[in-house]
Amino acid sequence: MLIGGGTGSTVVLEGLKSYRDLNLSVIVGMMDDGGSNAVVRDEFGLLPLSDIRKSLLALYNSGNNEVLRKLFLYRFSTGEGIKGHTLGNLLMIAMTDILGGEIEAIEMFKTLFGINGDIIPVTLDKAKLVAKYNDGSVVKGEHLIDEPNDDKLITEIYLEPRVKATHNALKAIEEADYIILGPGDIFTTTLPNIVVKGIKEALRKAKGKIIYITNLTSKKGQTTGRTQKDCLDIIEKYIDRNVDYILINNGMLPEKIYKRYVRKGQLVIEDDIVENDIASKVVRADLVATTVIKKDKGDELERSLIRHDSQKLSTELYKIFTSNGLRITKILRSFFSYYKN
Amino acid sequence: MLIGGGTGSTVVLEGLKSYRDLNLSVIVGMMDDGGSNAVVRDEFGLLPLSDIRKSLLALYNSGNNEVLRKLFLYRFSTGEGIKGHTLGNLLMIAMTDILGGEIEAIEMFKTLFGINGDIIPVTLDKAKLVAKYNDGSVVKGEHLIDEPNDDKLITEIYLEPRVKATHNALKAIEEADYIILGPGDIFTTTLPNIVVKGIKEALRKAKGKIIYITNLTSKKGQTTGRTQKDCLDIIEKYIDRNVDYILINNGMLPEKIYKRYVRKGQLVIEDDIVENDIASKVVRADLVATTVIKKDKGDELERSLIRHDSQKLSTELYKIFTSNGLRITKILRSFFSYYKN
Repeated sequence: MLIGGGTGSTVVLEGLKSYRDLNLSVIVGMMDDGGSNAVVRDEFGLLPLSDIRKSLLALYNSGNNEVLRKLFLYRFSTGEGIKGHTLGNLLMIAMTDILGGEIEAIEMFKTLFGINGDIIPVTLDKAKLVAKYNDGSVVKGEHLIDEPNDDKLITEIYLEPRVKATHNALKAIEEADYIILGPGDIFTTTLPNIVVKGIKEALRKAKGKIIYITNLTSKKGQTTGRTQKDCLDIIEKYIDRNVDYILINNGMLPEKIYKRYVRKGQLVIEDDIVENDIASKVVRADLVATTVIKKDKGDELERSLIRHDSQKLSTELYKIFTSNGLRITKILRSFFSYYKN
Repeated sequence: MLIGGGTGSTVVLEGLKSYRDLNLSVIVGMMDDGGSNAVVRDEFGLLPLSDIRKSLLALYNSGNNEVLRKLFLYRFSTGEGIKGHTLGNLLMIAMTDILGGEIEAIEMFKTLFGINGDIIPVTLDKAKLVAKYNDGSVVKGEHLIDEPNDDKLITEIYLEPRVKATHNALKAIEEADYIILGPGDIFTTTLPNIVVKGIKEALRKAKGKIIYITNLTSKKGQTTGRTQKDCLDIIEKYIDRNVDYILINNGMLPEKIYKRYVRKGQLVIEDDIVENDIASKVVRADLVATTVIKKDKGDELERSLIRHDSQKLSTELYKIFTSNGLRITKILRSFFSYYKN
């Protein structure tokens, strides 16, 4: 099972869905208040839908009618009021209104798209993400937290109000054999779902093994100057238990693109993990995508991004699953994180 | 085959689609420049789509997934820029963009919806409808023509520029066994498709029989003070041949609703047709819907409307088809008209 949604979980979902013996679930975040999600929330009174939309697309079977996928991805490039909206979001809004709820809408799209796998909202209540920084300042709203103007670092995040997890999310955590966290921005995508009331307790009690997929580069305001051990410590502090597996990339990042990241202060996170010093098993492998991945921001300039590779990631994950000799019935892929895009 | 689209053809399509031995086609108008169609045309550079949308829905098999139908009908009631748009139109816009053309989009929706029957645009070129009135004035644009401010009557309509018919429309007319015209506003829905270059000539050469379904009430600016014989004469002048069958309602209109029509100057059209005086066979029957039909105009006040009844109409039509002992392979239902809604 994944907790998080977004691009990070998309990458893992796309890789793992080809293993037909896995039962996949993704717990999607509901706190994103930026961009078109803000429109959805403010004008339609609905929860943010883009993580649900991305998860549906990630689980979409390529053998199915490709045009439905294209419709769902379609972004209007013209039309006053319509420009910039994705048809997928509009379809989600209409379906939620027609069927009376987000969960019913997700189930209907799963049926229409012929999707296996569960997509579970972490909460159905509205909350804002709040971040405390090392200079003592406090910022409310995921969108503002995600784009800091100075060099301060987040030290703590919480939700206001402290909304509670859905029954389905808790049940999925309880039943999962594996729970995958990451990759993704720690404080704005991995942890926001963990601080939903009930999730930490469910994780602590969960019999499933937790796999933490570390990030490739640092994120301004969140992990600048922090090492992989620092990140692991933060994760373990919030989930209040040890991670069972930690996956760290040791492949080279694409040089040209990485230079642009460096200019923006996004550096490779220093790998200071020593296996014998921590409780987790450590897996190091080349996990970097070499194919060019573009940003999708409507008509904004498209740029190549550094991303995990779906296939490489799922190969390593599947090795972990099978190394335990387990007949896998339920994979709890908990992405408490995703890449922002 | 129908030429026209819109609510009028919707009523006939919905009735006839239950006769599985009929091959139905509808030729849809492309000149409507009012309301959301104007947005579609002005901002997306596409042809008006609502007649296509309505025809798809009319042919939709009720045994199929009802939620697709509901999505297609869905009208946003909130959301800046989005409010008032129908999801069906947005889906048509996106599909046309994805597949590269209106015709491809129609075919894909037919596949997705499991629809039998052809939906054929009368033209793929843009044109404005122009009306000449009995006071010598000229008005351009279907939307303005359709809502006259004074008591003048249309005497002539034409297109500017005089766009030409699609090959598919001409072929459908040539192959049809029956061509159905009406019901619908004569000058803004029945005739605009006939004045498309090539249609009149195709109708004159067509071996199929033409059935003209007369209107229930008069329309301001179009048929006020005109009789059924006047309307027939106008139709026959434009198609340049005789109508083979004329269907006239002799059932009572729902009294309460009709009173409102009378206040707006929309009276029952006087039936002065004498069978032996005209070339057409005359069929008189109760064709009025007794179930209440509501207007769909977003969040505007819904009002009951006087409409033909799908079942009554299709029963009479089917009687005509079978009375000719013909093994029907292709019904050319030419609605050169539809009700505005």
